[in-house]
Amino acid sequence: MRFRIKSFKIGAGKPIVFVHKTDAKNLGIHVGNRVELSADGKRIIAVVDLVGNYFEPGEIGVSEDIARRLETKSGDSINLTFIPAPQSTRIIKKKLTCQPYAKRELNIIIKDIVNNAITEAEIAYFISGVYHCGMSEEETINLTDAIYNNGQKISWSSNKIADKHSIGGIPGNRTTPIVVSICAEAGVIMPKTSSRAITSAAGTADVIETLTRVDLSIKELKKVVKKTNACLAWGGSLGLAPADDKLIQIERLINLDPEPQLIASILAKKLAAGSKYVLIDIPYGKNAKATLSKAKRLKKKFLKIGGHFGLKIKVILTDGSQIIGNGIGPVLEMIDILKVLKREDSPKDLEDKSLKMAGVIMEMTGNAKKGQGIKKAKEILESGKAFRKFKEIIEAQGGKIKTLKPGKFSQGITSLKSGKIKEIDGRSIAHTARLAGCPSDKSAGIYIQKHIGEKISKGEIIATIYSESNHKLREAIEFFNEFNPIKF
Amino acid sequence: MRFRIKSFKIGAGKPIVFVHKTDAKNLGIHVGNRVELSADGKRIIAVVDLVGNYFEPGEIGVSEDIARRLETKSGDSINLTFIPAPQSTRIIKKKLTCQPYAKRELNIIIKDIVNNAITEAEIAYFISGVYHCGMSEEETINLTDAIYNNGQKISWSSNKIADKHSIGGIPGNRTTPIVVSICAEAGVIMPKTSSRAITSAAGTADVIETLTRVDLSIKELKKVVKKTNACLAWGGSLGLAPADDKLIQIERLINLDPEPQLIASILAKKLAAGSKYVLIDIPYGKNAKATLSKAKRLKKKFLKIGGHFGLKIKVILTDGSQIIGNGIGPVLEMIDILKVLKREDSPKDLEDKSLKMAGVIMEMTGNAKKGQGIKKAKEILESGKAFRKFKEIIEAQGGKIKTLKPGKFSQGITSLKSGKIKEIDGRSIAHTARLAGCPSDKSAGIYIQKHIGEKISKGEIIATIYSESNHKLREAIEFFNEFNPIKF
Repeated sequence: MRFRIKSFKIGAGKPIVFVHKTDAKNLGIHVGNRVELSADGKRIIAVVDLVGNYFEPGEIGVSEDIARRLETKSGDSINLTFIPAPQSTRIIKKKLTCQPYAKRELNIIIKDIVNNAITEAEIAYFISGVYHCGMSEEETINLTDAIYNNGQKISWSSNKIADKHSIGGIPGNRTTPIVVSICAEAGVIMPKTSSRAITSAAGTADVIETLTRVDLSIKELKKVVKKTNACLAWGGSLGLAPADDKLIQIERLINLDPEPQLIASILAKKLAAGSKYVLIDIPYGKNAKATLSKAKRLKKKFLKIGGHFGLKIKVILTDGSQIIGNGIGPVLEMIDILKVLKREDSPKDLEDKSLKMAGVIMEMTGNAKKGQGIKKAKEILESGKAFRKFKEIIEAQGGKIKTLKPGKFSQGITSLKSGKIKEIDGRSIAHTARLAGCPSDKSAGIYIQKHIGEKISKGEIIATIYSESNHKLREAIEFFNEFNPIKF
Repeated sequence: MRFRIKSFKIGAGKPIVFVHKTDAKNLGIHVGNRVELSADGKRIIAVVDLVGNYFEPGEIGVSEDIARRLETKSGDSINLTFIPAPQSTRIIKKKLTCQPYAKRELNIIIKDIVNNAITEAEIAYFISGVYHCGMSEEETINLTDAIYNNGQKISWSSNKIADKHSIGGIPGNRTTPIVVSICAEAGVIMPKTSSRAITSAAGTADVIETLTRVDLSIKELKKVVKKTNACLAWGGSLGLAPADDKLIQIERLINLDPEPQLIASILAKKLAAGSKYVLIDIPYGKNAKATLSKAKRLKKKFLKIGGHFGLKIKVILTDGSQIIGNGIGPVLEMIDILKVLKREDSPKDLEDKSLKMAGVIMEMTGNAKKGQGIKKAKEILESGKAFRKFKEIIEAQGGKIKTLKPGKFSQGITSLKSGKIKEIDGRSIAHTARLAGCPSDKSAGIYIQKHIGEKISKGEIIATIYSESNHKLREAIEFFNEFNPIKF
């Protein structure tokens, strides 16, 4: 049936079509039903909401993502077709009784997730089955394949495409810009895409955005890489392995992180970006997602499954016992990064980890001799060439290096006693930064003066909280004082 | 923060508040966040969508259920508060690794479901945990208790309140109006509430609605019961055990039906309606939800858990191998019911089952002597008193007995061969009726001429499909011919 569009600036996080009650009754469609909208050969699946005013029967309202995807505007004519229950609904259930999924079935499920053909509740059923029953190696391979194949792909003429991935959860673990700058300078091609924060204070994309735009199209990304050997883009706008974004969003609701899906997501994203060499960093320990034994198990699986897809893959297990660097929050983290690159008084832990990772990547791609990676990385960093490369990348993406200032409202927190720091609770640190305004207020955050093992005297400042608003600063301080994330 | 309401006639199936992008940014709220709206001491939790037009910053749009619950109108001032992650999100996860839920935890989860404080995906996680790991008897009791206690309750001065429940899945199993009329005539108090169809062709509430309104308030329901000993109301508008409705809605997405939740839902609804005597009918067999062994297991659990709550409970296992009666669809099923009550040429299977159930209930409540229940039920039905009682109930609810006609477009389907009917696939029959327009087009449906075991000749009409629209009739016929639900 054909409808006249009323464009409706609603961002609902998913495509929503508002149908007049009278039309819905005639068509026999209900709230929550899925319909296909099509115009000029473009199609999108949308969820139905009903309206009784704002427009007339014969008109439909569409949310922003629909208007964008179909390239329509108010007044255009559009076709709406009811779609029956998707195939996935019959398949998903299998895993809830620990039956394995066939390759074809995983492809159907992932396709339906990408096409928005199944609800978030159905995706939750899928995730909980995988969480509960796990997946065989073969299933994990097929899941990776399905996530990889249902989305955009970038291809490169060179074979020396490298990438890195740090498994999340460690505040301040912002090695990417440093590693990428060093490796690109050495001749490695690194089309790096990163995510924004979901539950943390900042994602790499949020941090890079303090200096330049990150929402590149694939065409723009290729242009930047051609010019500089690398890029520092946001993955969200590229459509690489888009099922992954949706799965993560539903997992985060109750903090699930099923292993097969973690592996499949990461590898699918790397494959879609066209990578051949991949370094995976698995932090383990008190503040990390993984214990040492889980990290070891994950390592084996990454090597096996990555190998199946022809990836040259290395996995390093790193210290995840505490935050890395001093600043937590987009601007504060970029300040730390710039200190390392500009050879100022830089956070040693961030610098050392970045050098190690850059070294491993350069040895993998043959841009450094075996055993000489770290040494070469150090040379590039200390010569100022890494900073020059970083500047080049930022400028190629349309930004520039500038002096960044943390939030205008700030307060130092003084230690109430003397002693040696025993523990820093990363989750509470991240939550403090979020209360201060992270990640949307880029200059909000928390600067941690000392790390575990360091001594502090009574009355000395242990951390400083920054915010764009006095109100948010108060809330962050209140939380910090109550939960006291830095323990002696 | 205070906002000016713009009432927004949107029925989204859940409370949705539309916040202007500018306000959202200032408040740090995102799509999908939960906020509490309050006005004059009334509160509701709503899900955030963002808008960029249709109104100004400082204004919010609210969906219909919000306006109704808060009793607000456009221009009113309302308070909006961000609410952090609900407690449930931390608790729900436990069951995914088969850890038991404590009583307190189940209460938190059910309260959050009722208050709309958790998403449908989170509810799906809860359901899949219960489906996968099951629940102990103690947990099932605590779940029943939580569902029962988080909602409205009806209390009665009499103790002789009886109820019945048939476990779903058998098309045409519409014994309720007949059983209620017989029992009420005998002096049993039966404040019966029923559901509407979700995936079937008709729920009892849809069938009753062909003659009268069914959306009674608790006050109206009590008035009807006082006058006639019974009622035939829709449960949905009463707020009894409302968690149940939400759980069923999410379960149906992939056809899950975890046993503990099935038991808890049914018993909680009966407890909330104030019942003391409960008859549970568990159909088993090819077309039913339960096999004989599952039906036996369920029976034991119903008796045990119902007993814990002080219910006098009986469970009968009945033949669920095929449809009951001849008509499938609201009007066609009511025509069958009226035939039984008016002593016309009635479907024998529907009549016999109704008499049996009415007999058991009257014996339970002491309104019939042991072993004399069916006999007494038969007397009441044959004397015409049951019909008179039914008429009284329908009229007390504001309706009247009238002659009903099935859909104006119809087509008989002739048998292509002669033989004895071996199987009738209830699910395909229900789907045919839905394609014809059920349950919203009340006069749509399918009339099945013969039952399993009966003979049919080539060229004889085996079924007739009715619809309000020629288009829907064609679709239903096409499906019927393709899937051929009646097998020889």
